[in-house]
Amino acid sequence: MLAVLKLDHRPKRDERITTHCILVSRIFGVKRFFYTGERDPDLEERIEKLQERWGTGIQVEWRRSWKELFSEWDPCHLTMYGLPFRQKLKELKSSKRLLIVVGGPKVKPEIYRLARWNLSVSNQPHSEVAALAILLWELRGHRFSRFKGKLRIRPSARGKILTEQDDP
Amino acid sequence: MLAVLKLDHRPKRDERITTHCILVSRIFGVKRFFYTGERDPDLEERIEKLQERWGTGIQVEWRRSWKELFSEWDPCHLTMYGLPFRQKLKELKSSKRLLIVVGGPKVKPEIYRLARWNLSVSNQPHSEVAALAILLWELRGHRFSRFKGKLRIRPSARGKILTEQDDP
Repeated sequence: MLAVLKLDHRPKRDERITTHCILVSRIFGVKRFFYTGERDPDLEERIEKLQERWGTGIQVEWRRSWKELFSEWDPCHLTMYGLPFRQKLKELKSSKRLLIVVGGPKVKPEIYRLARWNLSVSNQPHSEVAALAILLWELRGHRFSRFKGKLRIRPSARGKILTEQDDP
Repeated sequence: MLAVLKLDHRPKRDERITTHCILVSRIFGVKRFFYTGERDPDLEERIEKLQERWGTGIQVEWRRSWKELFSEWDPCHLTMYGLPFRQKLKELKSSKRLLIVVGGPKVKPEIYRLARWNLSVSNQPHSEVAALAILLWELRGHRFSRFKGKLRIRPSARGKILTEQDDP
């Protein structure tokens, strides 16, 4: 079981970054995406609509607090201050309930203290979307999930080939 | 030589996504980051200030048109409609002037036609930041660049350790 938690979501301001985090998680077969901060029904609806067309996979769930999640899962907090993630990849892979935690604008010291791991994808100012993507890519053995959606892309060297199925 | 081009930047609306693209590129040693769309001096200044503290590496350059860049470089356009990127990784690595092209909201058919490669990082709705991160991670052999900045992080299992040097 693998889940992702995005901390301190702010509707409008974080709309795109959080959406990117959800889409990356979905591609790598993450089934549950939690977020704290302000609840954002528009965000949830948009992801639902996207999945109606492209295939379901991920469920987006708002939570009032991260604390319960931290006790139910093994939290791995991504931060530029953390240890290089590859040092702990084996441990992460062996977790049965891994929760990847992606920070918000100001991450509380408590998060650092209560996370089971604080890991970095480079110790430079970075993108949380990119850090999440690289970690998931390595965790998932360089494999993308498959989806059964109405829409499918036929990979093409030039141009866009999209097929639509009524009964996916 | 490796560069990145972000198409159709819109100040304010794309501020964070473009910043994320720049930071990811910088981490992997990309020296030049071009963008088209509306010129954004605030964006350029923010990156400059960040590099004063964390070390220089990347130069952000606005261009009126992508066309000249396409003739000066080998353009590799990232798109969910493209061929799986791993099929072409060897070719990309052998290019002497690789330009990774990251789309905007509506990518013109011309881009698909004139790009040397149209490659996908999964054929599902995705994040351009994540696609760029995974491609660079693989292109750069899983290695991050090193920087000589005033600020440096000492990787830590718990908390933030930041050192400051006057003369980096």
